[in-house]
Amino acid sequence: MQTSQIIDRRHLDFLLHDVLDVTALCRYPRFAEHGRETFTAALDLAQQIALEKFLPHNRKGDLVEPQMIDGKVQLIAEIGEAVSAFCEAGFMAALADGGRGGMQLPFVVTAACDGLFCTANPGTIAYPTLARAAANLLEVYASEEQKRLYMQPILDGRYFGTMCLSEPQAGSSLADLKTSARLQADGSYRISGAKMWISAGDHELGENIVHLVLARIEGAPAGVRGISLFIVPRWRVNADGTRGARNDVRLAGLNHKMGQRASVNTFLKFGENGDCAGYLVGQPHQGLAQMFHMMNEERIGVGLSAIQQAAASYQYALAYARERRQGRHPDQKDPATPAVALVEHADVRRMLLQQKCYAEGGQMLAYDAAVLVDRQHDPDAAVREQSHLLLELLTPIVKAWNSDYALRANDLAIQVFGGYGYTRDYPVEQCYRDNRINPIHEGTNGIQALDLLGRKALLDNGEALRILLQRIAATCAEAAADAELAGLAVQLSDAANLVRDTTQAAAKRMAAGAVREVLANAAHYLHLLGHVVVAWGWLRMALAARRALAAGGDADFHTGKVQACRFFFATELPQVALSARLVAGADDSAYAMRDSWF
Amino acid sequence: MQTSQIIDRRHLDFLLHDVLDVTALCRYPRFAEHGRETFTAALDLAQQIALEKFLPHNRKGDLVEPQMIDGKVQLIAEIGEAVSAFCEAGFMAALADGGRGGMQLPFVVTAACDGLFCTANPGTIAYPTLARAAANLLEVYASEEQKRLYMQPILDGRYFGTMCLSEPQAGSSLADLKTSARLQADGSYRISGAKMWISAGDHELGENIVHLVLARIEGAPAGVRGISLFIVPRWRVNADGTRGARNDVRLAGLNHKMGQRASVNTFLKFGENGDCAGYLVGQPHQGLAQMFHMMNEERIGVGLSAIQQAAASYQYALAYARERRQGRHPDQKDPATPAVALVEHADVRRMLLQQKCYAEGGQMLAYDAAVLVDRQHDPDAAVREQSHLLLELLTPIVKAWNSDYALRANDLAIQVFGGYGYTRDYPVEQCYRDNRINPIHEGTNGIQALDLLGRKALLDNGEALRILLQRIAATCAEAAADAELAGLAVQLSDAANLVRDTTQAAAKRMAAGAVREVLANAAHYLHLLGHVVVAWGWLRMALAARRALAAGGDADFHTGKVQACRFFFATELPQVALSARLVAGADDSAYAMRDSWF
Repeated sequence: MQTSQIIDRRHLDFLLHDVLDVTALCRYPRFAEHGRETFTAALDLAQQIALEKFLPHNRKGDLVEPQMIDGKVQLIAEIGEAVSAFCEAGFMAALADGGRGGMQLPFVVTAACDGLFCTANPGTIAYPTLARAAANLLEVYASEEQKRLYMQPILDGRYFGTMCLSEPQAGSSLADLKTSARLQADGSYRISGAKMWISAGDHELGENIVHLVLARIEGAPAGVRGISLFIVPRWRVNADGTRGARNDVRLAGLNHKMGQRASVNTFLKFGENGDCAGYLVGQPHQGLAQMFHMMNEERIGVGLSAIQQAAASYQYALAYARERRQGRHPDQKDPATPAVALVEHADVRRMLLQQKCYAEGGQMLAYDAAVLVDRQHDPDAAVREQSHLLLELLTPIVKAWNSDYALRANDLAIQVFGGYGYTRDYPVEQCYRDNRINPIHEGTNGIQALDLLGRKALLDNGEALRILLQRIAATCAEAAADAELAGLAVQLSDAANLVRDTTQAAAKRMAAGAVREVLANAAHYLHLLGHVVVAWGWLRMALAARRALAAGGDADFHTGKVQACRFFFATELPQVALSARLVAGADDSAYAMRDSWF
Repeated sequence: MQTSQIIDRRHLDFLLHDVLDVTALCRYPRFAEHGRETFTAALDLAQQIALEKFLPHNRKGDLVEPQMIDGKVQLIAEIGEAVSAFCEAGFMAALADGGRGGMQLPFVVTAACDGLFCTANPGTIAYPTLARAAANLLEVYASEEQKRLYMQPILDGRYFGTMCLSEPQAGSSLADLKTSARLQADGSYRISGAKMWISAGDHELGENIVHLVLARIEGAPAGVRGISLFIVPRWRVNADGTRGARNDVRLAGLNHKMGQRASVNTFLKFGENGDCAGYLVGQPHQGLAQMFHMMNEERIGVGLSAIQQAAASYQYALAYARERRQGRHPDQKDPATPAVALVEHADVRRMLLQQKCYAEGGQMLAYDAAVLVDRQHDPDAAVREQSHLLLELLTPIVKAWNSDYALRANDLAIQVFGGYGYTRDYPVEQCYRDNRINPIHEGTNGIQALDLLGRKALLDNGEALRILLQRIAATCAEAAADAELAGLAVQLSDAANLVRDTTQAAAKRMAAGAVREVLANAAHYLHLLGHVVVAWGWLRMALAARRALAAGGDADFHTGKVQACRFFFATELPQVALSARLVAGADDSAYAMRDSWF
């Protein structure tokens, strides 16, 4: 197995097996053919392709941006080669049924494989993972005929896919979508409208692109209740699966971004010539719920991709801090003594620990959520229901906390490199630029915060939050039995109580009508709950490390996990007190501000 | 006067006159010729040139990076035109004596003019401001002959200048500099060595470049005590001031950066052919102290430049938030109602208020420090001494707090724009990239934190800090008399006491030998003191606004200042409690981490 500076497989294996015990998923019939060996084989293969096919052109993909030439997108050849290797190895069908040629892997293992590609090259990996997400949606909602014509070719690596939500005038506000659909005699629809910010919206990587488009059937209700979902292929597809004529979808322009440049971002026009065929997925007016099937998966994906880029820049910074010798300790100024490695400076260790806490804590959060997706295959309905509720609650946190703190980690990695980190000769500045998209797309982090406090925290009468707090309490009980961790258990338990009390206070105020005043502090609530959930993850990692140490594990590696947990509890977790106070008291210092006062 | 989206002159005038009362400086003999009218004229002129000559090529300077062609730096023509306009208007000599053709402006007014250029184009303005800083150093330490040959041509806009400290192997560690100087029979020196990260290190903007180079005279002591300062001109200068032969200084390469691309950053080699002439400034082995004269001014400049770029992106975001209509309030989902402007969303106001607090609070901090520079012209020795001590204490905060929080403001500006903010069609992504250098150069923020806690806070037996706390107490006493602000006064007073107690606890531990353990938390101390000082600035702004309101001022504008102050005190100032606890308790969670545990 090829090794690389940027991938810490030992940590990933620790997370998946020692902490999350993903092999236990194999007791579900769906994953019965799998075991630790097949999981390891998949991860090894992903790692090999990531390092051999994705990593080498990560910088080139940034420098040589996609171009629109004669109405077509031109990408560097390496993107196509990498995507082909991904498809040939079967990763496009990693989640799909064996009967469809899929690997039938658990979502968490697939996510871990994806994570390795994201670490190596977040731009290139967007093409196949977006396509796979489209296939997953079709698997749930499309007809068998649609699956045969549009989904199977994606799984086979021949077609790609997109999700087309935003419009230039509507941005995040899906209620204001204007793209229209008119029913035709043959049961198909004519689509007309414009879609903005479409990742991988046009390219020549495969034979076709399956756009999943939100549009309003003529006469549909206004707002989000009148949105339907359509398959709109770039090329029409004949009944026998052969490619037909070009559909009336036009690439109207490219968006030129600060980072993530390898991943083409497009402005698309549908039906300029009145001849754009679309095919309704499922029932009319169900588009939003259907799209959110894909969207929720994408939000986990965004949180995962963001944090894997944090993991990459952390590994770069760590290697540099160990290699570069500079300066001396503050009480040791004798210039005759040799300079020490950067990592010997306490403040550099502080910056590395912050990165470690954000990156590894965010990975724990993302993979923990991914396991909840797999619990939908549990034979016990109660487990399925609890997992579903918890996943709903965690999804905005995975998306928003991870993308916020991943960027902080990227920022700190630059700081460890100093001036070199600011140059394009080192990779960390690209991580910082690439990663800046993640707090924005698939629902801005402000929208995630509103979703969390305005909806998810109160979901099913607060049941989702109760489940979370029960699980945190169970971890605290376990940690309380370990003298080394007992103090941390008390601290987390107090923080969990603060979450409970804060949520109740907010719910009470909202019930009394102060909805806007309370939601004005939603970002603080997300920070509160995010930090508590990540602290919970760190305590679970520390527990697993303590078990491993007791069993004669790697003293350095496992002690480092415990120390990182301590660091997070000392320097980060106490921040939640302020966030909780602002939410519980419905602080009005932003809400009361008026436009004219700025 | 041309107005622009990015310059909030009303705020700047409020700050300079209503809060800082800079016209009072005119009672000092040095500024006796000046008054509010001449200050306004200088600012108007700076604003006009900034908008007409600097702003228009800000993006082009980013896109068309300096190139090295045939050993020379090639810049876009607009940089030369802008710099010429700056020099012709007299800004290169803004600080200089009237007898040397200077404007003899106060430092704070010059800084405010510079700030307008930084807002418009931080890359291009670096060329003349670096040159001016070199001239300022020469004014203090150089001989009259050196001033005539090297300083006056800078003031006249004919020569430029640099500061050459870092070397490739030594980075921030000046004790390890290796560049050498050998005395020649004519009293000059032969310089030999390599210097890295030299901004404006080579270009064709003027007739010559005066490099100020740190080097060791042969036989000098090791470490920082053996460093001397030399004038090393790019072209030798004859005794009559005419240009002589090319000196042995070679442009060895350019650094390609993430941002600040218009400002060329170079790698220079001195004396490769054994013929690099350098001229000692002042006495041997005094180079570090001399360079720190320039460096301290540069650190104020970095903090100012950083925060002015935050002010720019804040203004862009504010204008966009007022113009762009999207979505509805969380309790108002009827799609038939019109979408509201972004600024109507409470979370967007939260993001704008954070930007306002960071940008305007950081400006207050920087200009307040700039006034202390001018107090060196006070006839009262006690005022000079107190101002000097306070300036020493505030300098690392101006540099580090401003550059850290300016970046957060840039980040929030992108978030307000959403996807558009991530594209190169809008200016905020460039602000974010340009500004990322500021926590790194002129001493990383980690080094600023060590300087603050390890040296400045304890300076003169803690006298500098005592002066600061006295002034804060005076502001609190004034605010306590205003019922609207009394609660904030109590809060700031408590925070100031926390600073005092925390510093005493840290000093006690250090005196007991735990120097490294305490300094491991220096970054937290900088956050503590930075937030307290910025809160102090906000309370002073709120007081000035309340006075203006009482006198019938602009209700909207001045109420906004009070509200921003409230916001900072509600959401930011309470964060210091954790920072103080970590410092006072000498938290060891980073210090105890070992390299092998990562």
